[in-house]
Amino acid sequence: MIQLARRYRFAASHRLHSPQLSDEQNREIYGKCNNPYGHGHDYVLEVLLRGEPDARTGLLVPIGQLDEFVKRTVLADYDHKSMNDQIPAFRETPPTTENVAVEIRERLLRAWPFGEKPTFAGVRIFETRRNIVELQ
Amino acid sequence: MIQLARRYRFAASHRLHSPQLSDEQNREIYGKCNNPYGHGHDYVLEVLLRGEPDARTGLLVPIGQLDEFVKRTVLADYDHKSMNDQIPAFRETPPTTENVAVEIRERLLRAWPFGEKPTFAGVRIFETRRNIVELQ
Amino acid sequence: MIQLARRYRFAASHRLHSPQLSDEQNREIYGKCNNPYGHGHDYVLEVLLRGEPDARTGLLVPIGQLDEFVKRTVLADYDHKSMNDQIPAFRETPPTTENVAVEIRERLLRAWPFGEKPTFAGVRIFETRRNIVELQ
Amino acid sequence: MIQLARRYRFAASHRLHSPQLSDEQNREIYGKCNNPYGHGHDYVLEVLLRGEPDARTGLLVPIGQLDEFVKRTVLADYDHKSMNDQIPAFRETPPTTENVAVEIRERLLRAWPFGEKPTFAGVRIFETRRNIVELQ
Amino acid sequence: MIQLARRYRFAASHRLHSPQLSDEQNREIYGKCNNPYGHGHDYVLEVLLRGEPDARTGLLVPIGQLDEFVKRTVLADYDHKSMNDQIPAFRETPPTTENVAVEIRERLLRAWPFGEKPTFAGVRIFETRRNIVELQ
Amino acid sequence: MIQLARRYRFAASHRLHSPQLSDEQNREIYGKCNNPYGHGHDYVLEVLLRGEPDARTGLLVPIGQLDEFVKRTVLADYDHKSMNDQIPAFRETPPTTENVAVEIRERLLRAWPFGEKPTFAGVRIFETRRNIVELQ
Repeated sequence: MIQLARRYRFAASHRLHSPQLSDEQNREIYGKCNNPYGHGHDYVLEVLLRGEPDARTGLLVPIGQLDEFVKRTVLADYDHKSMNDQIPAFRETPPTTENVAVEIRERLLRAWPFGEKPTFAGVRIFETRRNIVELQ
Repeated sequence: MIQLARRYRFAASHRLHSPQLSDEQNREIYGKCNNPYGHGHDYVLEVLLRGEPDARTGLLVPIGQLDEFVKRTVLADYDHKSMNDQIPAFRETPPTTENVAVEIRERLLRAWPFGEKPTFAGVRIFETRRNIVELQ
Repeated sequence: MIQLARRYRFAASHRLHSPQLSDEQNREIYGKCNNPYGHGHDYVLEVLLRGEPDARTGLLVPIGQLDEFVKRTVLADYDHKSMNDQIPAFRETPPTTENVAVEIRERLLRAWPFGEKPTFAGVRIFETRRNIVELQ
Repeated sequence: MIQLARRYRFAASHRLHSPQLSDEQNREIYGKCNNPYGHGHDYVLEVLLRGEPDARTGLLVPIGQLDEFVKRTVLADYDHKSMNDQIPAFRETPPTTENVAVEIRERLLRAWPFGEKPTFAGVRIFETRRNIVELQ
Repeated sequence: MIQLARRYRFAASHRLHSPQLSDEQNREIYGKCNNPYGHGHDYVLEVLLRGEPDARTGLLVPIGQLDEFVKRTVLADYDHKSMNDQIPAFRETPPTTENVAVEIRERLLRAWPFGEKPTFAGVRIFETRRNIVELQ
Repeated sequence: MIQLARRYRFAASHRLHSPQLSDEQNREIYGKCNNPYGHGHDYVLEVLLRGEPDARTGLLVPIGQLDEFVKRTVLADYDHKSMNDQIPAFRETPPTTENVAVEIRERLLRAWPFGEKPTFAGVRIFETRRNIVELQ
């Protein structure tokens, strides 16, 4: 059983603000990430796959097919975008790294085109070099 | 003559759009950076200094004093901010890395508190790991 | 179940020498790390957390609270310190990366202020870029 | 139970081409990696170990002994080599990262000289910074 | 006067062997890089530009145009290629980093399509993370 | 005219304290780097060379000869050492990055064995990833 992690990058802006919290709570909990005009990051997304390499190709999956799928399913909507304004899931919900991981995992799981050859095994997201979320 | 580069990081969002260009030209020249809702990056700022180390301290400048100066003069306005909305210089001018370097260099030069011990020698800005602007 | 890794850095010096080994064994096993005057590294500490994001904040834990806890519990004693001289656990025990991971895990576990929201899930320590210890 | 990852680097060239596929399939699946003259990468190999630190040394294993073993067992054959031409396992089988991980894991497992002090726990291979294979 | 460095990556294989040296001299001077079957690296190429940002765009040059030029002029011939076999300049001349820098600088200089807006200012090549050649 | 930078790493400990300053001034200027027990870093040293590649080898200098010279002249004394205790130049003088650059440059210049083929062009030292000193 081999696990493959394939890395992608996207630049996006976000603002952390929860409608379920008071303005004061928002400032206290999110600190400068609560800035009303937003700010941005260069995110790293790792898509995790598990399975046996194909006997003929020696690959879990042809990389070109995986790249094309991730670009279409995730990057087209996230790269060089404002998450709060342009990803419907973040209209009401704050785009914390945790929530971004949940949203991206959903997209990949729902549309996964490779069946069990290989299985989709989760995502790892580096919001910055200091903040890393893994969701299997 | 020693040159010291001291690195700082800030996360910021921006949108590239020039009022002197047509919408079509904006899209063509800036590509996905022209997205009206903006996007963001983790910038690296290197502040460059030149001089002789002080004979008693062995330092070009006490690092704590330099950090305090750069935080107050640059980072307080840039970190976790939207450059188009929150930096006056970018109301009309697009915050390209080139223009950001010019704006930050101006701030540091104008307020430089160390005279010639050491002299301010310019800035280097990594917008992403692929795009590096140096202005001496 | 989400896992979050949050990265911290500290610079520290150490000397590897075990009182349970002869001088010759110490030199043979630890090599140049046995140098009596010590040497140092820039350590990276990842604190690992697991749990469900809070429904209102979208966070496993407010990052500011976590940072404040790790600074007080670990970094205040380790950063810019000599581990052999200034961390009591390393008076008799050599501060190998394995032992440092055990000592830091102990501190975090004992004082963990967040209960199970989220749970403490272990540490990962990069002594150098080549030596990585994980303790869950 | 501590897990240690120790990193090594090797530069090698390879060509991806499977004798079980037609030329057209080879080009389609491997893309530019199918270039008949080969190309190369700087691989990062992480050797994973698990166990309890020795009570006297505080180490899972003396690092010098591990390094000497990995150099002899893996790096001597892989570093600055052409995998297709110089590693017998890749005469007929394409040296994809998946297959390289299997081959290197085999070598380490078969010759592991440390018994269960510590146990060999697998390998992680970074073919490039974007492609990471883990095999436990 | 602003200097911009734009980074590109390419994977390539090479073998260092000079027809002007004896076999013994080749082995002595190039060490394991003289391996007859070749080996490979992930090169980083920085293309350096100098000039004033355009008053309307705030850019030295539209990045898309620069990328398209470098891909066509350099990367199409170097990426995923064997330099000795597939770059005519290295039929007789060993593809050392120094010689690769000269060859790539030549290509960019000869075909530079931007005149003095901005001027071409040289190249920097990272063969590995330890070996960096700059040619202005 | 080609410039080559060759990177080396060494781990060392130091304490910043100037006998020409009062204890209070030492604490104020050096902050936590004044800790009497010292602390440490993983330094990166870049040795800079300039010249024309040799017509036969395509190299500024055979890398093995350069490595052997830098190991003997610098790394043997600095790696896994305490600079204050084990480098005579830092008995009285604080081992700031500026002073370390001066001391290492002196060693390389004085013993440079390659004449003008190639010339020695200075050093660049990364004390941490944030503090970079260049001395030409």
